[in-house]
This record gives sequence, C-alpha cells and structure tokens, in this order.
Amino acid sequence: MPLTIAFLVSHRMPTALDLVGPLEVIARWPIEKRLHVVAPDAGLKTFDTGLIFQAASLDAVPRADIVVVPGGSDPYVAMADELSKAWLRAQREHAKWIASVCTGSAVLAAAGLLAGRRATTHWTFREPLAALGVEVVPERVVVDEPFISAAGVSAGIDMALELTLREFGRDTTAAIQLGMEYDPAPPIDAGSPDKAPPEIVHRVRERIVRFISAQRP
Amino acid sequence: MPLTIAFLVSHRMPTALDLVGPLEVIARWPIEKRLHVVAPDAGLKTFDTGLIFQAASLDAVPRADIVVVPGGSDPYVAMADELSKAWLRAQREHAKWIASVCTGSAVLAAAGLLAGRRATTHWTFREPLAALGVEVVPERVVVDEPFISAAGVSAGIDMALELTLREFGRDTTAAIQLGMEYDPAPPIDAGSPDKAPPEIVHRVRERIVRFISAQRP
Repeated sequence: MPLTIAFLVSHRMPTALDLVGPLEVIARWPIEKRLHVVAPDAGLKTFDTGLIFQAASLDAVPRADIVVVPGGSDPYVAMADELSKAWLRAQREHAKWIASVCTGSAVLAAAGLLAGRRATTHWTFREPLAALGVEVVPERVVVDEPFISAAGVSAGIDMALELTLREFGRDTTAAIQLGMEYDPAPPIDAGSPDKAPPEIVHRVRERIVRFISAQRP
Repeated sequence: MPLTIAFLVSHRMPTALDLVGPLEVIARWPIEKRLHVVAPDAGLKTFDTGLIFQAASLDAVPRADIVVVPGGSDPYVAMADELSKAWLRAQREHAKWIASVCTGSAVLAAAGLLAGRRATTHWTFREPLAALGVEVVPERVVVDEPFISAAGVSAGIDMALELTLREFGRDTTAAIQLGMEYDPAPPIDAGSPDKAPPEIVHRVRERIVRFISAQRP
C-alpha cells in the first residue's frame, strides 16, 4: 500500500511556504506514496501571496498515514472550521504522524487534539496557542508523538527533515537535503525574535498581531 | 505605478519551492506591487511534486520590473521553449532585475542572456550551464546585475533576501526574515556537496544526472 500524505488547507489565506516547504521534502521520500492537498472547500484556492492552487475535498482522503497542517494569515477562520476539525479528529485515530507548521498547530489545538501536549507555532502566536491548553515550547521543531510541530512559515522545511530523519534515517535525510541544496545562508541573521533587533521584533509583532486580531471572531 | 514582478514557469515539471521561496519573500516587500505567475501555456499546471497551480499567459505581463525564473526537473524542455525565451529577451530590455533559481539560470542562458556572465545553478547542473557560455560560480547566490541567480531549490529564499537587502535595506530584510521565521536549523548539515558524505553526493548526482539526461532532446 502506498503511503498516504494529506496536507490540510483550511485557512482562508494559507501561506504557500508553510505547505510547499514540507511538501518539497516529503515528495522526495524513497517510498511509494500519494500526496494530497485537501480543503473543506475543494477547488481553486489562493495563498496569501496570491498564488492560486487546487485542493481536493476532505472526502478524497478518508484515511491518511501522515497529516500536515500548514498555517496561514488568518488562524481564527481555520480554527472555527468544523469540517476540518472533524476530519482531523478522525485522522487522529490512525495517522502515524500529525504535523503542523506555523499557526497550523492552533487548528489542531482548536480540534481538541493538543490539550496538555507540547507544540510550537509562529513566534507571534505563542500566547493564543497556550490559551488553548497547549504547552507551548518556543523551539523551531517540537516532537510530541504523534504530533510534530514547526515554528513559523519556513520552519516547515526543518520539521519535514526531522520527520525524514525519524522515518528514513541519516543517509536518506542527507540525500534529500542535498537534492534540495538546503544549505541556508541568508544575508543577515534575523530570523528569530532572539536574533533580530528589538525594534524590528516590536514592529513585526505589532503588525502581525494587529492583522490577526482584526479577524478574530 | 505598482511594481510588477513576474515568475516565469516554462519547465514542464517546475519545482514548487523554487517559485514559492522567492514569492514568499517578495510578496512581503513594503511597496505596492503586482505578482504574476506566467507560463507559455496558461492554465492549470503541475509542480514536479504534484501540487496543481494556476499560471497566466506571457501576454498578461508584457513588461515586468522584476523577473524570477524558477527551475525544475526538466531544464531541457524549458531551455527549448521559444516563446519563453523571446519573452525573456523582451523583459531584458527594461527589467531592473532578472532572477533565477536552480536550473532557471539555464533557461536564461539558453535565451542568450547570460553569455560571459557570472551565475550559479543546482550543483549537479554546473557543467551544462558552463557549456552555454556562462561563468559558473559555485556559490549559493551570485549577483551580476541585472542578474541574480540562486543555487538549487531552497537557495531561492536566500536569493530573494539578498535582493530585498539591495532594494530595501537591512531593517526591511530583517523584518521579512523574522516574519517568515527564517532561522534555519536542519537536523543534519548535508545541504551542499562540500558537506554531505561523499557517497551520498555520488548517489544523488548519479540519480539527478540520469533523470535529467533522459529528457535531453
């Protein structure tokens, strides 16, 4: 039986890299597999950056071996979606791994799956996630089986490599990392609130919190 | 006038992260802008990982300020596409930047735009790129204005941050990097042929070269 991997997109404004980062890693696993992008509203959808992509219905994947929940710019929309949450609870019965990126962990928490569990999220969304009963760990990748969560946006690549390491070992992980030439070298070192200048951290936090709060029901 | 940024997808099997990495960065630029994904065959297209996305026609963007050429698993298809190459040559007349990721630089070279220019590409495709008259520089990001090229797949993120640094300065670059939480921490360090174990480098090179060569016209 091929491995079934489902990426759930229930944010109204999903973030493309949240989905594509792990997809790019998992699609290279040396095993027979089927990758599906599913959403409560199947059809053409739009990432928050404007790229238009196609999603299948939740019914198309009644039983996934691995679930990945990317995040997006409007977590409250996804957290309120009953169809997605019911589908996630059903997947929890059998899936080997349930992964999240960025605000994807808040969707899992809203579905009731992360109570008392250790998980991470985008650095600006730690407090709302903690308020859902999650033990928020401010790390880039957090494993609490069967859950594995990534911090914001780009952290999904590292999360998927960690999953690869656990499922396929070092050589396969190295081969995939090398194939993607993932040898990061950003021109500056400001990718976490500990590393960016404090005034930039303040400004980015204010902007994101304001944007997200405006959509809170 | 808003800035027009066009992502050209002319590979039959484009690589999603080649496009989405730079898209995720550029979409956060603090300026009015229009982002377009264009292809010689408009409509629904499929990334080599199976994700289906929508592209507009080349005619939809007669004049871009910035062009990004993502790569893909079948560079020879893209390098042979006369419509794409003519469009690229027309963009060269006015675009401020022409960027590439992975085998995207080979498409620029095939269009006659990189003769004698310094550029990079996926580490397995350096020799074919050099054979097109390009001075191949085995670095992650290479700038030879108006061209800026990235190495394989994930390097497009770093390339777009370098472009951000040059266009908008350190504070904006830091804010975008922090917003994407791009503080990479892969579980192992094997993302370049200098860092991966030699037998893995050999194996990955053989597989990719065989796959690409099989499609050579």
